[in-house]
Amino acid sequence: MRATYLFGAGDVRVIDVPDPALRQPGDAVVRVVRACVCGSDLHPYHSMPSTSDGVSMGHEFVGVVEEVGAEVATVRRGDFVIAPFAVSDGTCEFCRAGLQTSCLHGGFWNDQQLGTGGGQAEAVRVPLADGTLVKVPGVDASAGDQRLAGLLTLSDVYGTGWHAALRGGVRPGSTVTVIGDGAVGLLAVLSAKQLGAQRIVLMGRHRARTDLGREFGATDVVAERGEEGIARVRQLTGGGSEIVLEAVGHLPAYEQAVGIVRPGGTISRVGVPQYEDAPVGFGSLFGANITLTGGPAPVRAYIERLLPAVLDGTVQPGKVFDQTVALDDTPKAYAAMDERRALKVVVRP
Amino acid sequence: MRATYLFGAGDVRVIDVPDPALRQPGDAVVRVVRACVCGSDLHPYHSMPSTSDGVSMGHEFVGVVEEVGAEVATVRRGDFVIAPFAVSDGTCEFCRAGLQTSCLHGGFWNDQQLGTGGGQAEAVRVPLADGTLVKVPGVDASAGDQRLAGLLTLSDVYGTGWHAALRGGVRPGSTVTVIGDGAVGLLAVLSAKQLGAQRIVLMGRHRARTDLGREFGATDVVAERGEEGIARVRQLTGGGSEIVLEAVGHLPAYEQAVGIVRPGGTISRVGVPQYEDAPVGFGSLFGANITLTGGPAPVRAYIERLLPAVLDGTVQPGKVFDQTVALDDTPKAYAAMDERRALKVVVRP
Repeated sequence: MRATYLFGAGDVRVIDVPDPALRQPGDAVVRVVRACVCGSDLHPYHSMPSTSDGVSMGHEFVGVVEEVGAEVATVRRGDFVIAPFAVSDGTCEFCRAGLQTSCLHGGFWNDQQLGTGGGQAEAVRVPLADGTLVKVPGVDASAGDQRLAGLLTLSDVYGTGWHAALRGGVRPGSTVTVIGDGAVGLLAVLSAKQLGAQRIVLMGRHRARTDLGREFGATDVVAERGEEGIARVRQLTGGGSEIVLEAVGHLPAYEQAVGIVRPGGTISRVGVPQYEDAPVGFGSLFGANITLTGGPAPVRAYIERLLPAVLDGTVQPGKVFDQTVALDDTPKAYAAMDERRALKVVVRP
Repeated sequence: MRATYLFGAGDVRVIDVPDPALRQPGDAVVRVVRACVCGSDLHPYHSMPSTSDGVSMGHEFVGVVEEVGAEVATVRRGDFVIAPFAVSDGTCEFCRAGLQTSCLHGGFWNDQQLGTGGGQAEAVRVPLADGTLVKVPGVDASAGDQRLAGLLTLSDVYGTGWHAALRGGVRPGSTVTVIGDGAVGLLAVLSAKQLGAQRIVLMGRHRARTDLGREFGATDVVAERGEEGIARVRQLTGGGSEIVLEAVGHLPAYEQAVGIVRPGGTISRVGVPQYEDAPVGFGSLFGANITLTGGPAPVRAYIERLLPAVLDGTVQPGKVFDQTVALDDTPKAYAAMDERRALKVVVRP
């Protein structure tokens, strides 16, 4: 089959690899109907050292079950499924607590230990299929692009935005500031709106994206960054935002979050931190009793909650996709997102 | 009057200063009945550069109201009062939200802007008396040492331990690990017990203190520190503690907290951080969805909740005091605590 591999910074290729096959009785093989490129895929795209073997890419996909192992009970051949970005058994204490990203037996796509490939491919072997995959009744591979795009967001970005808002403690009447106008930031806006936030300030500078943010529920847009952006949000919110959702992952975004959060407030991070140390002492978090929370979203825990409104069109998270490429053109998708010509690109095998 | 001043590292003196007097209509003057020395007083005692003026010390005291300004409505001459370690107006949005340490018009003892002195003195001027002081009916300066000691903990250490537990989300059945066997750590144990924690691991190495910790509710004591201590707690808790209360403030204690917290768990800090930057990235907090919370305790918010059990003797937080000195001997109290000959010392003017 054809699959997307990264061989080093800027070097994405679609190559021939062996077809995935069942290995364990709990496995499934899923034929990919739609995949996509994630903002976090751009981190290795910027910095990965060259490798002759390459690394299989992609952690977001929806597809149709092609084959299942003898112990798989919840999905069968022909089912349309959403694959969350984490593999999870669904039975360990962390899965039962809704923290599937910490599953004791799980892992991720392109995981050496699990032997999984990436989702930007024609097909994927899914270990722990019962815990991992979510069947979507009434949908098949012939569904419209818009419907498939909406379902695809449930594999990562929508659930990640939802996780940001949920961990941030957004509730009816909240004032929320979202840092970052990428797909996750925009879906954090949508999630905050769904959870009842009254005021949603979106910090971003790309007009097309912030316009979509307004459509999703942002009440204010702040294009300034750094000290200027902090001053603007503090002014808009009368002294700071009680909840800040950080959907970028770079240190300046963290510092911006610290600058705009209100005393007693919460910073919820879902942008994968590209730093390890950061200010947390008296002058940043401690003195004003700021809570820092968030992490990789256990999107598996949220799919059932978010699915109905996606299916009936009440919300349209799929609008974060603004381009589509064929699988062999995946390198073009990386370039378009890297150069900010595209917000988020669908890959169609 | 006599008052305790710090003139530089290790240089505590009790000197003559002018008597405090009313300045604003919302002020009170309180005659101190009992004060004490705090673990956090030891930080400047270790490191403060020499100064010829000296710095007024002490932020914990109980006493009797001697005089009130024309606008003071809730306390009057002769009332026995508890003074929390923060001055607060009781009316701003943060006070109403129970975050009096972020009061828009408040501050602390020995605060240049507020013009307040410290509590290790014969008397103190209390600005914003209505918001700050809590009257204790039925108690006067002739109360027994044990009763006064219990009330004195409500000015800081008991409320601070309570804040740690509350922010940490302790609830019936919780597993909690407390880092630090100082007065705050021990009262964090007591608070966790009161909030229903089932398992309370106390990390500390001073036998007399950890024995008191067991009396307050600790189910296990871990004397090891660093990697060894982390391994021990992870073993005791089957993979990590869902809640960690950090009552020290030094970076190794933070790192210890990160090492022992369970995925999805919470680190609640009340030890004043003696660091600004610390690990918060994928390998420390983010990857396992750890929440970091805490800060200076709004003890004013907790006094009414904690007072009844102190008054009726159901809990005896005053047991954290193991020595008493006269005001002129306050320097000896600092030395005794610094050399760990005393856990916490009462100062009796």
